Amino acid sequence: MAFSLSARIPAMAVQAASDGDSVLVAGWAAQVKSLGKIGFLVVRDRTGQVQVTVPGGHAQLPDLGKIPPESVIAARGAVQQSKLKSGGKEILLDRFEVIALSEPNLPIDVSGKIPAGLDIRLDNRFLDLRVPRNLAIFKVRSRINVAIREFLIGDGFIEMQTPKIMSAGAEGGATLFPVLYYDRKAYLSQSQQLYKQMMLMAGFEKVFEIGPSFRAEKSHTMRHQTEFTQLDFEMAFIDDEDDVLKVLERLFSHVVKTVKEACQEELAIIGATVELPKFPFPRVTYPEAIRLLNEDGVPLKVGDDIGTEDEKRLGGIVKRTLGADAYFITKYPWSQKPFYIMKDDEEADGERLSRGFDFEYLGDELVSGGQREHRIGVLKEQIADKGLKVEQFDFYTTPFAYGAPPHGGFGMGIDRLTMKILKLENVREAILFPRDPDRLVP
Amino acid sequence: MAFSLSARIPAMAVQAASDGDSVLVAGWAAQVKSLGKIGFLVVRDRTGQVQVTVPGGHAQLPDLGKIPPESVIAARGAVQQSKLKSGGKEILLDRFEVIALSEPNLPIDVSGKIPAGLDIRLDNRFLDLRVPRNLAIFKVRSRINVAIREFLIGDGFIEMQTPKIMSAGAEGGATLFPVLYYDRKAYLSQSQQLYKQMMLMAGFEKVFEIGPSFRAEKSHTMRHQTEFTQLDFEMAFIDDEDDVLKVLERLFSHVVKTVKEACQEELAIIGATVELPKFPFPRVTYPEAIRLLNEDGVPLKVGDDIGTEDEKRLGGIVKRTLGADAYFITKYPWSQKPFYIMKDDEEADGERLSRGFDFEYLGDELVSGGQREHRIGVLKEQIADKGLKVEQFDFYTTPFAYGAPPHGGFGMGIDRLTMKILKLENVREAILFPRDPDRLVP
Repeated sequence: MAFSLSARIPAMAVQAASDGDSVLVAGWAAQVKSLGKIGFLVVRDRTGQVQVTVPGGHAQLPDLGKIPPESVIAARGAVQQSKLKSGGKEILLDRFEVIALSEPNLPIDVSGKIPAGLDIRLDNRFLDLRVPRNLAIFKVRSRINVAIREFLIGDGFIEMQTPKIMSAGAEGGATLFPVLYYDRKAYLSQSQQLYKQMMLMAGFEKVFEIGPSFRAEKSHTMRHQTEFTQLDFEMAFIDDEDDVLKVLERLFSHVVKTVKEACQEELAIIGATVELPKFPFPRVTYPEAIRLLNEDGVPLKVGDDIGTEDEKRLGGIVKRTLGADAYFITKYPWSQKPFYIMKDDEEADGERLSRGFDFEYLGDELVSGGQREHRIGVLKEQIADKGLKVEQFDFYTTPFAYGAPPHGGFGMGIDRLTMKILKLENVREAILFPRDPDRLVP
Repeated sequence: MAFSLSARIPAMAVQAASDGDSVLVAGWAAQVKSLGKIGFLVVRDRTGQVQVTVPGGHAQLPDLGKIPPESVIAARGAVQQSKLKSGGKEILLDRFEVIALSEPNLPIDVSGKIPAGLDIRLDNRFLDLRVPRNLAIFKVRSRINVAIREFLIGDGFIEMQTPKIMSAGAEGGATLFPVLYYDRKAYLSQSQQLYKQMMLMAGFEKVFEIGPSFRAEKSHTMRHQTEFTQLDFEMAFIDDEDDVLKVLERLFSHVVKTVKEACQEELAIIGATVELPKFPFPRVTYPEAIRLLNEDGVPLKVGDDIGTEDEKRLGGIVKRTLGADAYFITKYPWSQKPFYIMKDDEEADGERLSRGFDFEYLGDELVSGGQREHRIGVLKEQIADKGLKVEQFDFYTTPFAYGAPPHGGFGMGIDRLTMKILKLENVREAILFPRDPDRLVP
């Protein structure tokens, strides 16, 4: 008579059960030991693991040896105090049932004891994710998504779901993946830029989307992600980009606080600590950032790109002088930003500044955004300023002709966000099934 | 001196303000009337609209005529009781400011008074969405997404984000869109079937995703959606498919209840009424459904497909006899289901039944799902039974070799769900920017 799995309790719930309670657990055989006179089964499910002791003389003791690790098993028995030094409770076996045998040879070690390279781990991701640390990463990632949505919905934002197949790209065509769309060529969306702005022309006022974006960087040398999950955020009727920063700093603080408070178990398994960022986040203008770097001996001048190494150094300076892990770099030179970013009135060293900003966390850029140019005449000029053909962007500019409110927004990668909050070494650890120029499976 | 838009209040909030309060509103000019001695502006934002009266002699009265409808304007003034029969409050203008002029000729009427065909509406979607009814549809759709997530997260599900670019399709290649992936051919995902099952092999136990899926139906005659938003749901350690139905009926009831309670304003604008489905939802087996249709004079036999018309008729029968708008059809013939659905032990009229089910609501199928075959040997036999090459599905079957728990799940289209709950006539009304074989813009 097969067990009814609906009676199953989580492995970790055994610790809260009373001695003598009859319980059913089911999961994967993390360990199987048959010592002749006694046997042990360790059952792992997504809550943790529990030991099942098979006493001498039990009819199923001889069968233990036939169970390869990672087989799916269900076991019923009475809860008792473990005799191990580690203490805790275990189950004294009444009966177990093998639900699905595993192949005896596993391509990677699931206990987490024998480390494997990231590539072989990703090739066998369905096994790699059984390592409790990896499961914990994606539990946190799921919670991060929840936290973002509960904050934005609570703040009056409308979640939109926009198409990923497009006839043209809002940011130029160099890094688009072509799609064969019946007898036509179409492209995969590389951002929701056009759509989120269009929703504000449509009067939605505050919108966001969390969804996939695609970017076909030409370089095969870097292991960049060709598909990534992005939060796209846009709001209307702002005075300037600081109205966006005010929401972003509250949003980010809420996300970090949620992870810190709601994911303590997962953080312990991952071995990560999370500190609440100092609020409000400092605003460092780009010219000020250049000055700080200059004082630190970096010979950059206004107009130069702040590279990855200098960005980390700047993060160190801001941490040292302002005590902040999270801060904004504002007023980027317009020459470094896309055509749709509004120009600022000010200049620095002859460089026209812009309403574009970055959000920096622990030395890396997590967000890029800005106030958008909503005046159609100026917008068209800016397209021409970038050396683009104005008519080719008619699909983009047309909605601006019928009443466009001032607005701004940003994009934030969920993959990178998860990586940075958990201080993971590689962004691919934070993605279930990464895609790069060489990787399309699993 | 320009208004600070951060002082702005929602148009509808004027009704709750006290007479004499000085308020600032901003939005689109829904109406502009200049009667010589007095003028009116109606300002619309996403909460509703409010009238601004421009008294005779006001310095800006002559400027009113220069504002085309749908321009973006901000207006400050004192709240007062309206003299209109309709009552309510209005604003006596102190000063208005034009933020962005609209072109005077609008491609469609935004007041909703002059109806336009769906195609021209979709061509000008950014204007069409300004019609309050259309905004209301997408406010409800956003709330439906919230309701699904709050239910599933509360029930212990983990939200996953899986790739949309794949090297092969889990359900065969006939309806896949090819992607040019550097020097290779890849495809757009037509379901998360493979990934959601793989996550259960990985030990996540309960997973879901809401994301885009893509289907390249060859027929150009039907206006089918080539891109749609789908809830993919999968859970492990089930006894049979009824464990899935039990979650699905609670989930669906929660969604309908949320819309009914939290979206009253939107339902009123749309003109839709929503009734809570009778709980629990009846389970009608497929052979029973055939019998009911036979009794109603439809000459179907076991093994036949229940077509759209007969599905509606069956919905009527179930409504009449069981008083239910929402019900399940279970135990579909295996011949009508994909290879990964588990066969049932039973037969009917020589047809092998399956653990596959549909969820029917108001006469239409909203969900398709079932218990999956988790035993790798049987799974491979079933692939062969369907006339497919077993080796070609190695990417799919391999994870089953390392301990696969019994599991089941379903897919539910968010577009159709929104359409059915709101009783819209066309699914494209429930999609912001629909995609079909002929439509790739906007």
